[in-house]
Amino acid sequence: MLLPVPALSETTVALCIFFILLVPFAGAGLSLINTGLGRSRSAAHSMVASLCILAVAAGVYFLCGFAWQGYIGRPAHVFTVAGSEWSWIADEPFFFRGLELDGSPASLAAWLEMLSVGLAALIPLGAGADRWRLGACCASTALLAGWTYPLFAHWVWGGGWLAQLGVNYGLGHGFMDGGGSAIQALGGLTALAMTWILGPRRGKYSLEGMPTGIPGHNAVFVLFGCLLALVGWLGLNSAGAILFTGAEPGRAVLIAVNTTLAAASASLMAAVITRTRWGKPDASLSANGWVAGLVASSAACAFIIPATAVVIGLIAGALVTLAVEWFELRLAVDDPGGAISVHAVGGIWGVLALGLFAHIPGRVLNTVSGPLRGSGSGDSGQWLAQLVGVATLLGFVLPLTYCLNSLLDRFYPQRVAVEGEQQGMDLFELGAGAYPEFLTNPEEFTRR
Amino acid sequence: MLLPVPALSETTVALCIFFILLVPFAGAGLSLINTGLGRSRSAAHSMVASLCILAVAAGVYFLCGFAWQGYIGRPAHVFTVAGSEWSWIADEPFFFRGLELDGSPASLAAWLEMLSVGLAALIPLGAGADRWRLGACCASTALLAGWTYPLFAHWVWGGGWLAQLGVNYGLGHGFMDGGGSAIQALGGLTALAMTWILGPRRGKYSLEGMPTGIPGHNAVFVLFGCLLALVGWLGLNSAGAILFTGAEPGRAVLIAVNTTLAAASASLMAAVITRTRWGKPDASLSANGWVAGLVASSAACAFIIPATAVVIGLIAGALVTLAVEWFELRLAVDDPGGAISVHAVGGIWGVLALGLFAHIPGRVLNTVSGPLRGSGSGDSGQWLAQLVGVATLLGFVLPLTYCLNSLLDRFYPQRVAVEGEQQGMDLFELGAGAYPEFLTNPEEFTRR
Amino acid sequence: MLLPVPALSETTVALCIFFILLVPFAGAGLSLINTGLGRSRSAAHSMVASLCILAVAAGVYFLCGFAWQGYIGRPAHVFTVAGSEWSWIADEPFFFRGLELDGSPASLAAWLEMLSVGLAALIPLGAGADRWRLGACCASTALLAGWTYPLFAHWVWGGGWLAQLGVNYGLGHGFMDGGGSAIQALGGLTALAMTWILGPRRGKYSLEGMPTGIPGHNAVFVLFGCLLALVGWLGLNSAGAILFTGAEPGRAVLIAVNTTLAAASASLMAAVITRTRWGKPDASLSANGWVAGLVASSAACAFIIPATAVVIGLIAGALVTLAVEWFELRLAVDDPGGAISVHAVGGIWGVLALGLFAHIPGRVLNTVSGPLRGSGSGDSGQWLAQLVGVATLLGFVLPLTYCLNSLLDRFYPQRVAVEGEQQGMDLFELGAGAYPEFLTNPEEFTRR
Repeated sequence: MLLPVPALSETTVALCIFFILLVPFAGAGLSLINTGLGRSRSAAHSMVASLCILAVAAGVYFLCGFAWQGYIGRPAHVFTVAGSEWSWIADEPFFFRGLELDGSPASLAAWLEMLSVGLAALIPLGAGADRWRLGACCASTALLAGWTYPLFAHWVWGGGWLAQLGVNYGLGHGFMDGGGSAIQALGGLTALAMTWILGPRRGKYSLEGMPTGIPGHNAVFVLFGCLLALVGWLGLNSAGAILFTGAEPGRAVLIAVNTTLAAASASLMAAVITRTRWGKPDASLSANGWVAGLVASSAACAFIIPATAVVIGLIAGALVTLAVEWFELRLAVDDPGGAISVHAVGGIWGVLALGLFAHIPGRVLNTVSGPLRGSGSGDSGQWLAQLVGVATLLGFVLPLTYCLNSLLDRFYPQRVAVEGEQQGMDLFELGAGAYPEFLTNPEEFTRR
Repeated sequence: MLLPVPALSETTVALCIFFILLVPFAGAGLSLINTGLGRSRSAAHSMVASLCILAVAAGVYFLCGFAWQGYIGRPAHVFTVAGSEWSWIADEPFFFRGLELDGSPASLAAWLEMLSVGLAALIPLGAGADRWRLGACCASTALLAGWTYPLFAHWVWGGGWLAQLGVNYGLGHGFMDGGGSAIQALGGLTALAMTWILGPRRGKYSLEGMPTGIPGHNAVFVLFGCLLALVGWLGLNSAGAILFTGAEPGRAVLIAVNTTLAAASASLMAAVITRTRWGKPDASLSANGWVAGLVASSAACAFIIPATAVVIGLIAGALVTLAVEWFELRLAVDDPGGAISVHAVGGIWGVLALGLFAHIPGRVLNTVSGPLRGSGSGDSGQWLAQLVGVATLLGFVLPLTYCLNSLLDRFYPQRVAVEGEQQGMDLFELGAGAYPEFLTNPEEFTRR
Repeated sequence: MLLPVPALSETTVALCIFFILLVPFAGAGLSLINTGLGRSRSAAHSMVASLCILAVAAGVYFLCGFAWQGYIGRPAHVFTVAGSEWSWIADEPFFFRGLELDGSPASLAAWLEMLSVGLAALIPLGAGADRWRLGACCASTALLAGWTYPLFAHWVWGGGWLAQLGVNYGLGHGFMDGGGSAIQALGGLTALAMTWILGPRRGKYSLEGMPTGIPGHNAVFVLFGCLLALVGWLGLNSAGAILFTGAEPGRAVLIAVNTTLAAASASLMAAVITRTRWGKPDASLSANGWVAGLVASSAACAFIIPATAVVIGLIAGALVTLAVEWFELRLAVDDPGGAISVHAVGGIWGVLALGLFAHIPGRVLNTVSGPLRGSGSGDSGQWLAQLVGVATLLGFVLPLTYCLNSLLDRFYPQRVAVEGEQQGMDLFELGAGAYPEFLTNPEEFTRR
């Protein structure tokens, strides 16, 4: 049995409400980052798609997503293996009908998830920029918010089998993720699946397979989006730690310091690496580093000291610069927003980092008792639990999201028609450009 | 007698402070939406006007607005009709002098109103884009913040006669509006009055009266503004529900879920309708739908279940697309920002929706006792009270704001001189453009 | 002995957490303002520099800044003069090691400072726009965050000798600054030092020394940044007043109303003055006025009535318009962002305004007992304490920051090479422009 979720004090409820209200800034930030890293002739399309994705995700999660995700201690389908009960999917009524939206932990979790599923669904948009049809974005989001996300989130945050690895199998406290690095990884892996399904943009790769740089159209949007994302992640990490791991509200200060330091060190690391390698720091990779730091901080930020957060950030910043190059050059994956490197690689690193570095004495949910410790502090069980989570992401979630989106693609083609790409998504799909009065040179990069 | 306002717990005060601090994002969002929907050569003017409007509104509300609006249970002028006492205007000293700004309900209400009067005053700016002089904007804002808004807000939120319809006349709980749909409608009706006074932009209508599409100059600003507006409205709806209808703080979760779902469903509805009718979803109408959903959710969001919020949003999204076309084609009203359709139509729909759908057992202010119910739950009195409120908006507020602004126009012309419109508001009124280094084709749309 | 810092109630801790979480919006706002007031060909550089500055500031403050700033009642180095003990620098371990990040007042202060040191470090960036090398920005930020800021902040907010002027020397309550006007002044004076070290941009002054107007490239960013800055300052002023002067949490309403009114009146004053003098209101000076009002409000906003906040704002708005002209014409100081006028002049005015107008009965920290009163209320000691603080800023902080940055300049030139200025910072330092698809006329202003 998992520990029951304790009742939250009135002040803790107020803090949670407030943290969750900051989460939309993460969505606003990611939208601007995606849009700024895309082409000017797809900018309106990217923003409309962001709005629609957030809307569809909220609606579908309300319809059936929460019913399958649930929350710790609430009804779920369990199966018994070797004498242990494992929970694999929640059993709630649709449309939030079983839920009093009154500030209870479950209601706060449902609301937080309604926003954070939209966040996860925004991630693939960065990878599918300039070629993903609006209708298909919405349909793919419905699959994510209605099935992939709730299922995996139940396992992690709803008292499902990953969370039960501790009580049932003795692996530390079971799979742990305070603020959602694993959720980001889910979004990033969906982005990877989408790049396979959509294929690269026309003109991205030469006949010999050499990639061309297609710069984002507005660096100010990208970097300003990073600052908004920071605020959103401060909310996300704090609310998640309280609702899903039982952190005390005062630990929000630790979480905030850690989150900030991880983002800061990751962006500086990306700037230093790009400067060292190519002579000049790269603006968009520094921005990607910043977000990768945020993503990597999420899982562990409530369970580490600030110096560790700096280390996690530095490694995240290094990983993202290498991953971006690796995906583009080696795997011929065209990911304009760097979504895979930032969210999948950064998220998986964050999940593993918890297993390595976590070291907080004190109660956590998901287990019977005892302090949370990573392998660096002598508990290799926790590290194993994190590895099982990563294996689930790579071995189950990635194939699942690939299959679902391929199936969708068969019935409703996800990639825009050729003339759409030539014309630009804005004109082709929306009938109007984002900046009708400004003179641009849109052909410059497609001609190559 | 209205129920006295109960003392708020320390935590509730903290939550209210926090909700109100989010309200400026609604102002920032509306400013970007207005600016993005206008021309590039008026962009600096639109933003400067937004700043000045917020500044003048705050200043004038501080000077005399609150003195006339007041708050439930505080001094007011009453007149007696048929044995009942009706309050028509508050009787407070100027300059907040009677008010301890210490976290009391009245001080929180005063501060919330100081921000939300600016929000209402931003609405006409969207309708007057590209032709409304800066000085006249400020003067018109002073009239709104100093007289029209406080008067009507006293009736609704200050314990005035609309709120007393329940206790005095048996109409449900009297006119109810949690988050301010009626206030938005007031702003929207002022926008309507301004379009009549200012007339359409040059080149908007051909000699035969056919309208020309003049697209907004920056779709990214518009859609990003929608995401900021969401955060602002979450604050607005929660703070309003607590301070003006006595909602418990935990209900903020319900309010947030409802507000989000209303915006989401309204924007999707607008996208679907425009796609169905014209083959392509319209970016600016989807954005307008999103905001209309927010506006329509305000009145009732504390008193409905989430499924009802979806219905309110869907209808709001449909209404706004029809209204935009109707005003532009049938009534020859040139409203670049869609302010009338979004805020007047959306706001009136929100007020009526409360009368139809409200169904929350539990205490509300404004009345002696008993649950709040809309006509759909068997209380046609509440529905009548909402109708009286709408009649007041259309039959009293609209003529009042039209007369005040016409009078102002006589002494201080509100519309810019002809050369101002030819040159662009930025150069003519500010002496500098918003984007001096970018090449634009500003004549393209005025030549037509 | 200074009064001990009282334990904060659970609700007050929650409010502080929430106020501090709003502070990043001040950073986001200042970044956009700086970028918008610069050239389009430096826009990406300006945003990347903002991100790096925030990152370096947070990191260095975490490394050693807090160790030297400390907090009231914690270990510090003291020297004894004439029988009184004066604290001149804190004595904490590096890396926050002595600090439980658990919501205690000291941990909240450390976190607030980690963000607000970044804010102070952003200020010189506005003055060094279009010519300050990215690496030098980072190095200069490290000096500010690692030495100048912590030293001065210890004196003001860490129980240092400026704060002790009251208990030790009878000067009112010692030097007082609720929200950090003095900190802004520190940033503004560093900006002044940087303009001296960097020199004016090429083409700014003719051979005869006449300045040329080089307009900012995006007025929408500038004015939108002002709205974000408002939210950030509301957080900054409230958190500072609670943590550094012991204000009760309910006074946040007073602080918010005062902050808003100061910004509003300052921007209107700047608009009126520029309109009166040059026939047209100036957009960027109105924006600068708004921010100057925020900066000037910080010190005193918890200790004055709203009408006084209006007066402080009006004077701040007037000062900033005069100072901008004075620095540009008389002192040949090229400050594209107006950083010196807004933050140094506005900040010093804010510090003095507290000495003139403060009048709040009630407990404040930093002293033994008795109400806080400015010279306008009969306590000329408080006024003297504020004058000592200003003298310290001008006589110690300005020379210190000038020397440190000059020394840095000798070993690591801060100004970009000539070809960098000709090419634009984006291309020269980052290898890519901010807006690669938009056509611009970048030569127009440099040819002159």
